[in-house]
Amino acid sequence: MIIIDGKAIAIQIKKEIVGEVNRIVAEGGKRPHLAAILVGHDGGSETYVAGKVKTCEEVGFKSSLIRCENNITETELLNHVIELNNNPDIDGFIVQLPLPKHISEQKIIEAIDYQKDVDGFHPVNVGRMSIGLPCFVSATPAGILELLKRYNIETSGKHCVILGRSNIVGKPISTLLMQKAYPGDCTVTVCHSRTKDIKNYCLNADIIIAAIGVPEFLRGNMVREGAIVIDVGTTRIPSSETRSGFQLKGDVAFEEVAPKCSFITPVPGGVGPMTIISLMKNTLLAAKKTIY
Amino acid sequence: MIIIDGKAIAIQIKKEIVGEVNRIVAEGGKRPHLAAILVGHDGGSETYVAGKVKTCEEVGFKSSLIRCENNITETELLNHVIELNNNPDIDGFIVQLPLPKHISEQKIIEAIDYQKDVDGFHPVNVGRMSIGLPCFVSATPAGILELLKRYNIETSGKHCVILGRSNIVGKPISTLLMQKAYPGDCTVTVCHSRTKDIKNYCLNADIIIAAIGVPEFLRGNMVREGAIVIDVGTTRIPSSETRSGFQLKGDVAFEEVAPKCSFITPVPGGVGPMTIISLMKNTLLAAKKTIY
Repeated sequence: MIIIDGKAIAIQIKKEIVGEVNRIVAEGGKRPHLAAILVGHDGGSETYVAGKVKTCEEVGFKSSLIRCENNITETELLNHVIELNNNPDIDGFIVQLPLPKHISEQKIIEAIDYQKDVDGFHPVNVGRMSIGLPCFVSATPAGILELLKRYNIETSGKHCVILGRSNIVGKPISTLLMQKAYPGDCTVTVCHSRTKDIKNYCLNADIIIAAIGVPEFLRGNMVREGAIVIDVGTTRIPSSETRSGFQLKGDVAFEEVAPKCSFITPVPGGVGPMTIISLMKNTLLAAKKTIY
Repeated sequence: MIIIDGKAIAIQIKKEIVGEVNRIVAEGGKRPHLAAILVGHDGGSETYVAGKVKTCEEVGFKSSLIRCENNITETELLNHVIELNNNPDIDGFIVQLPLPKHISEQKIIEAIDYQKDVDGFHPVNVGRMSIGLPCFVSATPAGILELLKRYNIETSGKHCVILGRSNIVGKPISTLLMQKAYPGDCTVTVCHSRTKDIKNYCLNADIIIAAIGVPEFLRGNMVREGAIVIDVGTTRIPSSETRSGFQLKGDVAFEEVAPKCSFITPVPGGVGPMTIISLMKNTLLAAKKTIY
């Protein structure tokens, strides 16, 4: 059983990005520039955005943080988006979700220039991904593909069972893994809350991607010997043992499942560290104009 | 066993569209207007486009056919697209595929204003469909959903196995059937050329959608009792028995499979008649500005 070390892979990719940035700057190019819009003071969002800003520094990107209060109007937020769209120094930007209820997330996402949409949430990027065209792939699915690739995990002809049909994980990773590509060429099954006998699907899976948001949903008796398990769950559970006062729980009962697996990602330290680094990779691609 | 009568459903929907058009025109509105660009003289394309023009007449739409020779340049074709984009009388239009090899189909598709893209091939429409937003759904998947709906076929929690991962059928119908909707809420498995033991997946399916392009691929011993089988295959086989000199063959060995099914679509007369009518429905939606 091999524990997939997302943290180590993320550090490795970080080094590769630093190398690229140094090369670009040495050749007189512009330093990649990522901006983030953060609305309000949600604890999770603050942490994520702080992590993104910090990683930008580490890889040598310029970063900008636009902070808005919770009572910002949709029009005001749209104006920030338009400004970033038009700012030639900004290569890519994100609007940290969730947004306050009085603002339409979809409207904001669609206002982002898809050529700067490094989160890969704009319909043009989602559509191009589905068709199999170059695009910004959103961070979590991109991170999963990268882990499979870096560990040389064979995917062709494998049965991949995906738990969850969200727009940011389940649906895109299902599309990506069925493509004629590596990683890909999987027979893909998508299970969700309406699936009957989910255990049976899991027992028939070569690869399980758990993105259902229920802590320890996948138990030892749901996994066959030799399976590859990717845990996308990150539920925050209150905890008195950590400094932050909470603990991250994955969708997989790790202690039970791990002994049966050929490969498994832990939580934390599996898919998590890959998401920020995927955003950095997208920003680099945006700066280099590789995709658009 | 019930044979799903796509021809009858198509006639019924045609009547509904005629009713809507009459109402729009009676209220002083503009008659919906569909345009088609046809490049070259491919037999199949000629037949399809002629069918579309004829159906436009039957439902009371205005139609325009732009014919171009095989040696048209990409730029010239793009100019036709731009003209139709800018023509306020045209509600929707299609560029009949395939195009000659020297023209990039993708470039042409992306040049179409997505608000007039009644074929639903533009990345914006594909992406919005995946996210679950209002959009033009391409004709074949839309036709399949309509058949399931008109026959009140329960889909929630059913295991739907899709054979084929094409951009125009397999991928979009998989996305649609996994959505939280009716028809939808299926557990979806997508099989394709790299799938091992495809028979086993089929035997576990409540619903099979065959879109693999191999005549009579799905045999009687691959289907369980009570299954619902939707046949999207339309391979032309030379035949001395028909006036046209060819015969349409589905992906399903109908004689063997039908007796085991609760519902099955025939070829011809199943999904086929629904595709043109789905295009008409999209054109009506475009004219009414229902989606954009």
